[in-house]
Amino acid sequence: MNTLNPKRTVAELKELRALTGDENGAQRVAFTKTWLTARAWLREKVKNLPLEIHNDAAGNTWFTLRGESEKCLLIGGHMDSVPDGGWLDGCLNVLAGVEILRRINSQYNGRPPVTIRLVDWADEEGARFGKSLFGSSACSGNLNLDEAQNLKDKDGITLPDALKNAGIDFERVKESGKELKNAAAYLELHIEQGPVLLDLDLPLGAVLGTFGVERYAITFHGQAAHSGSTPMNRRKDAFLAAAKMSPEIYKIAGRSGNGVCTIGSCTTKPGIVTSVVEECRITLDQRHLDSASLTQMLAEAKAASEKFASEGNVKVSWERLWQIAPRPFNSDLIAMCDEAIRETCGQSHKLPSGPLHDAAEVAAAGVLTVMMFVQSLHGISHNKIEDTKEEHLELCVTAFDKLAEKAMKWMVAKQR
Amino acid sequence: MNTLNPKRTVAELKELRALTGDENGAQRVAFTKTWLTARAWLREKVKNLPLEIHNDAAGNTWFTLRGESEKCLLIGGHMDSVPDGGWLDGCLNVLAGVEILRRINSQYNGRPPVTIRLVDWADEEGARFGKSLFGSSACSGNLNLDEAQNLKDKDGITLPDALKNAGIDFERVKESGKELKNAAAYLELHIEQGPVLLDLDLPLGAVLGTFGVERYAITFHGQAAHSGSTPMNRRKDAFLAAAKMSPEIYKIAGRSGNGVCTIGSCTTKPGIVTSVVEECRITLDQRHLDSASLTQMLAEAKAASEKFASEGNVKVSWERLWQIAPRPFNSDLIAMCDEAIRETCGQSHKLPSGPLHDAAEVAAAGVLTVMMFVQSLHGISHNKIEDTKEEHLELCVTAFDKLAEKAMKWMVAKQR
Repeated sequence: MNTLNPKRTVAELKELRALTGDENGAQRVAFTKTWLTARAWLREKVKNLPLEIHNDAAGNTWFTLRGESEKCLLIGGHMDSVPDGGWLDGCLNVLAGVEILRRINSQYNGRPPVTIRLVDWADEEGARFGKSLFGSSACSGNLNLDEAQNLKDKDGITLPDALKNAGIDFERVKESGKELKNAAAYLELHIEQGPVLLDLDLPLGAVLGTFGVERYAITFHGQAAHSGSTPMNRRKDAFLAAAKMSPEIYKIAGRSGNGVCTIGSCTTKPGIVTSVVEECRITLDQRHLDSASLTQMLAEAKAASEKFASEGNVKVSWERLWQIAPRPFNSDLIAMCDEAIRETCGQSHKLPSGPLHDAAEVAAAGVLTVMMFVQSLHGISHNKIEDTKEEHLELCVTAFDKLAEKAMKWMVAKQR
Repeated sequence: MNTLNPKRTVAELKELRALTGDENGAQRVAFTKTWLTARAWLREKVKNLPLEIHNDAAGNTWFTLRGESEKCLLIGGHMDSVPDGGWLDGCLNVLAGVEILRRINSQYNGRPPVTIRLVDWADEEGARFGKSLFGSSACSGNLNLDEAQNLKDKDGITLPDALKNAGIDFERVKESGKELKNAAAYLELHIEQGPVLLDLDLPLGAVLGTFGVERYAITFHGQAAHSGSTPMNRRKDAFLAAAKMSPEIYKIAGRSGNGVCTIGSCTTKPGIVTSVVEECRITLDQRHLDSASLTQMLAEAKAASEKFASEGNVKVSWERLWQIAPRPFNSDLIAMCDEAIRETCGQSHKLPSGPLHDAAEVAAAGVLTVMMFVQSLHGISHNKIEDTKEEHLELCVTAFDKLAEKAMKWMVAKQR
């Protein structure tokens, strides 16, 4: 008997919003009192299910429904939000997982063929310390401890001290990695946070993987000169060279297929109305699902910056801010996700994920992974106006449950 | 007998530098102790000449050598500098004027055919209150008193209070206008502060007038969006539209003849590496000697900004920061200046002045005006590395003196 009740998920999301949000949006910032309130509420929600519940060494909470096999199907999400965040980002994933646990528990009389585990990752957003995917990167082993131990919040409190207050020993966070033992597949549902499904008028999509990212600061070095007395042909205008990069990155992204490039920040020195710009710094964020295409986009941007610098008689320097490799998801699971969506609402769409998710860390740890996206209204998240139609929320719970069932059967079939 | 001694001017400039500069440059900021030191030193330098000396209602110092006629030939400059300024900007003009007073006094036995007046304008630079040409604009009547009374320095002291400390009554500064009675011509020597004469390898040039200026802030309003999840064709990128303005203003300036356009500042909001730019503000400074051409340049920039905004699905708004009309100089005096230069060093060049000078205010008051420029090394001023070859400094004193003699004879001829 299938007891899945997607309307209950929507009602629980609203209950959580009332409990942990205010007029500015969701306030479930990791390691705050409101976050602990949300997590306590979650434990209350599942108290009637026969689950083993524990926090791991990195503060991730695991809800385990033991099955016939030790092999585990993982379903992940995160209760934490950015400050003034949206009502769905992260907790939709968790609450859809809760509903699936209820359905599986009911259908298999508390003993499914494989072990089902729901994980609430700690501090996915990184809102307080500027480092996202904390819990999942500790678990995957990718967390750079040397870097992380120096992170401070705006009050100067270090990450290790904040963790200590939450009962977590910074030195031991990577011990959470043992939770991935026996993990045969990882599923994550998420709002799209972009406009692709909205534009296609489709409720759901199967995610191909998370983009790799190359993130740089590019500084052009020219010469300050009086805006009145310096003829145009004598200028070494750092802004001119930087400005030419903007239309160029649209061309580079266009040539790359489905890559994206963003100049998010521009600063000028001396930055006064009466002087040619001496120094102009822009940031460039490039993303692609394909590693070779990402490398190509970066090379093209570097070549363009050197061309524009040379044309304008200025110099250019590049500084790497951050990078991460693309994380393509498992093709079998992508096919199952696509099928589950088509069975639920007739039509599906495969798309890459621009934003990072905990799923990227789990995939990096070698667990076969897929994500499902549900349409975002306004294409916006990390904001109180983040929203998704209720009918789409219900559809995504249904489709995500179908995916879980398919994945479980696939795991059983592989074991034979 | 001509006793002009340009080497003495160079020596006096060095003496002034030693007295009022430090390792960071000239420190003769108006209304400071060092400025008063410089002015006292100047009075000492001319104490053996039969001059009437007084400060006017705006704090400008007038040195008057009475002549046969009440008609006055004015020679102007300013002792004040920016903080960490150059050793020549402003005081070269004054000290060349002193040398000319000595020569005329000597040649005409203390009684030249017309009255010769040297003026040391107060606070040309506007370094402390951000308002340049204070003394000359009070004298011309153009000073906006409502605006000026609210100006504050970085310590919160108002301009009227600072003037009071210097013995100047803010309410009465425009009474200095009476000093221009009987003014038949105004001459000003200045370092070029640009690279034009340096590029032409010429020591001296005759100035056609000061550029008119149109100064605006242009803000493009787009939409913030996640750098990973927003496809390129869905973006409303405020930086893209603003960036397109940069190559465009080079085209606009090129079409205008000798106009110049500068984007000196660019700021982005939210200005983070992971977001498309929602709001981008640039400043645009446009200058031209011809009023109609200046109007045309502004219209072309506005049209371009609207085109780029429309292309990028963003909005644009313009805010005027400041404007001043072009001040073309007197053609007879320009011809005399040109002739004086050619007699001194064989070759001359006529050029507009990009920077503003006190001469622009005097011209605006209806006094026939011309300026002479001497080559700047590095094309740089307002900086301790500001410099001019000593041989060029000597040439400029000689040529400027010839111009004064020609102007005096021209005045006499006009009186007959």
